[in-house]
Amino acid sequence: MTETIVILETQVDDMSAQAIAYTMEQLLQNGALDVYTQAVGMKKSRNGTLITVICHCDRQSICEQILFRETSTLGIRYRWQERKILHREIHEVATEYGKARVKMAWRDGFWTIQPEYEDCAKLARSHHVPLTRIQEAVKLAGESLLEISKANL
Amino acid sequence: MTETIVILETQVDDMSAQAIAYTMEQLLQNGALDVYTQAVGMKKSRNGTLITVICHCDRQSICEQILFRETSTLGIRYRWQERKILHREIHEVATEYGKARVKMAWRDGFWTIQPEYEDCAKLARSHHVPLTRIQEAVKLAGESLLEISKANL
Amino acid sequence: MTETIVILETQVDDMSAQAIAYTMEQLLQNGALDVYTQAVGMKKSRNGTLITVICHCDRQSICEQILFRETSTLGIRYRWQERKILHREIHEVATEYGKARVKMAWRDGFWTIQPEYEDCAKLARSHHVPLTRIQEAVKLAGESLLEISKANL
Amino acid sequence: MTETIVILETQVDDMSAQAIAYTMEQLLQNGALDVYTQAVGMKKSRNGTLITVICHCDRQSICEQILFRETSTLGIRYRWQERKILHREIHEVATEYGKARVKMAWRDGFWTIQPEYEDCAKLARSHHVPLTRIQEAVKLAGESLLEISKANL
Amino acid sequence: MTETIVILETQVDDMSAQAIAYTMEQLLQNGALDVYTQAVGMKKSRNGTLITVICHCDRQSICEQILFRETSTLGIRYRWQERKILHREIHEVATEYGKARVKMAWRDGFWTIQPEYEDCAKLARSHHVPLTRIQEAVKLAGESLLEISKANL
Amino acid sequence: MTETIVILETQVDDMSAQAIAYTMEQLLQNGALDVYTQAVGMKKSRNGTLITVICHCDRQSICEQILFRETSTLGIRYRWQERKILHREIHEVATEYGKARVKMAWRDGFWTIQPEYEDCAKLARSHHVPLTRIQEAVKLAGESLLEISKANL
Repeated sequence: MTETIVILETQVDDMSAQAIAYTMEQLLQNGALDVYTQAVGMKKSRNGTLITVICHCDRQSICEQILFRETSTLGIRYRWQERKILHREIHEVATEYGKARVKMAWRDGFWTIQPEYEDCAKLARSHHVPLTRIQEAVKLAGESLLEISKANL
Repeated sequence: MTETIVILETQVDDMSAQAIAYTMEQLLQNGALDVYTQAVGMKKSRNGTLITVICHCDRQSICEQILFRETSTLGIRYRWQERKILHREIHEVATEYGKARVKMAWRDGFWTIQPEYEDCAKLARSHHVPLTRIQEAVKLAGESLLEISKANL
Repeated sequence: MTETIVILETQVDDMSAQAIAYTMEQLLQNGALDVYTQAVGMKKSRNGTLITVICHCDRQSICEQILFRETSTLGIRYRWQERKILHREIHEVATEYGKARVKMAWRDGFWTIQPEYEDCAKLARSHHVPLTRIQEAVKLAGESLLEISKANL
Repeated sequence: MTETIVILETQVDDMSAQAIAYTMEQLLQNGALDVYTQAVGMKKSRNGTLITVICHCDRQSICEQILFRETSTLGIRYRWQERKILHREIHEVATEYGKARVKMAWRDGFWTIQPEYEDCAKLARSHHVPLTRIQEAVKLAGESLLEISKANL
Repeated sequence: MTETIVILETQVDDMSAQAIAYTMEQLLQNGALDVYTQAVGMKKSRNGTLITVICHCDRQSICEQILFRETSTLGIRYRWQERKILHREIHEVATEYGKARVKMAWRDGFWTIQPEYEDCAKLARSHHVPLTRIQEAVKLAGESLLEISKANL
Repeated sequence: MTETIVILETQVDDMSAQAIAYTMEQLLQNGALDVYTQAVGMKKSRNGTLITVICHCDRQSICEQILFRETSTLGIRYRWQERKILHREIHEVATEYGKARVKMAWRDGFWTIQPEYEDCAKLARSHHVPLTRIQEAVKLAGESLLEISKANL
């Protein structure tokens, strides 16, 4: 499956980490698919930040507005790009610690199972159990679910 | 003013960014003064993560427990170290956008004023105004407060 | 406002930080709009450097020449890309510390003011005053200038 | 359990990524416990590299020799430091893909199981199966082993 | 000389450095021209990894398969891009330490000589001589070879 | 040869790259031996900066003052540490491009030669020759000087 997305990029050297994190928050709340920052070495010994925003075409305008409003940039580069994506399904599974969602994707001939972070983190916090232990339990429950589905075919 | 703090350090190459962020959250909620991560180049082309925890001596034990519980590390380095700190005061100031706290510190012959991020972010979100604009307004209000204090001496 | 720019990229693993900084200097002196470097993890545990050059189309040729002359690269990727830019004006303002230029840009419904770094740094050095204090004074003077302009309309 | 280790540190700005990776290889072959590099921003817009070596005290001398021989450094900082380490055991487990070793450590009230990377990578390469699938199978086998041990007590 | 290449990009936040390094290995063994990783700051305080693959068009499909198989990504961005490359020749030269290959490229009006890393590293290991000393000797031998070629014209 | 130095460290998340670069400049002008910055992942998705200053003990006080004056930090960690340093000599050598200084150091049984960057950069700029070509010429001249010294013993 292929879809078209927009990549916005701009690098800044006169913003604080606080203000960049706030910009990231605003972008994600307004429909950006993903936002990430990278440390870049710039002229005059400045270690600035490259901000990259990935969004659908109908969100390009609002994301540009936020970048111009919240950052000090005077120029935003953009390009349209193709992206191959996997079909994914969300299911809920039950574990000894409680319920959690898993994301399942069909990948290279088999299903992969990715436990939803927020659900696992919540269970880990309330049970005082290591996060990785919860994630393993959820993954195992996801695999059982998959076995049952296969058996029912 | 000088105080003694503990620095805990460990590097990992078999953990996800999700699990490291969760560890950071747990450390900060259990009394760590600060936690930061750094990308490190390790053997076998692995770009691992160095985790550094700064805490008071009475929190060393719980922070070590969290590191051993939430990370894959088998060894934690620690050292006690001196830290020079500035005297700081928290005040609340009023702006056209609402109230916010400022942190004031006496530094090299003058007071500096640092607006509290969370207060400013909250005002920025509710007024749909750039964060930096709020921070400037809060800083200005802080400076007025300082002038009044001086005048009253 | 939109303009077309060229992005040149190349990653190196057999150059020193000194030589990369010199390359950056040469690129900026020959018309590159911006140059930045990023630490990248490469094969065989090498932490190399990705060099990105942003320039106008008429500077592409000279920037490529410099990259081929000063770096060890055998291949340079390039792409033409659109960039949205803000209208900006340079003004000079006076402060208690001396004069400095400010860059003003019309952004999302209001003007932003960015003090010119070199002017501020010069004043900070000669007055032995924190750079941020100078920048705040210059910004304040810029805002006064803006108020006067508005009043005169 | 606590042991004393030595930390060696030096930053360089006139070496290539190739030469730094070779230095890392030499250090690990001569008894360093761990070596890692970090990208650092240095004077004159140089993005240099901080090299950190962790070794036992009886390896300090040879590691310093390698750093002085293979890098351009003229100064090496060193400090002795305490490290808390967990008791660990190596076991071999069998999976449907073949045998692999696991490292087991007693941590915060329970055992953790870490599949040996090289064993898993070897199985993944020969079976053309995702590495993470192998690691999960090995971990599961490790857990079964642990259950049996507990039952036998 | 210009050629068309494909750039594949994906960022992950739930993989370990071990698994990313293994992915890199698989990509290079299956025809990728280059692979590099970058530390990126992502949402929720996660320091993830951006993976970039550069390959010829006929390798795009296999590289995408490997990314979908070995990483946790659900989406891969790709673009076709032009790359300017230099003509290069491989020659073998003899030094007092043994033979080594050099890569020669015609660049901006003169030939540059790049000693092959693996050959130099092998000689450095067997002679217990600093790598840089070997590289210098190989480079010098390469320059002599070049002088002879010119004289023979 | 061993000497005692001081390491100052502080991490910031509310400063711009410009202001950090200015701080670095001020520290180096006031006697810091070296200053470097590192990108660090901090709480609340902030990618802050860790600033490290290396200085002699008699410069600790002024460097701390600069950090408190120019950065937003409220706390500076410091430690005294031992550093092994090599004996080094500065010599001037002549090349076809002009004169340049070289730093010579006795290292692991032989002399190493490091061309002075500023001298080489100056020659490269005025001759429009790649920096690396100048550095190689200077290094070669340094080696000849060394051969003559040995012959004269």
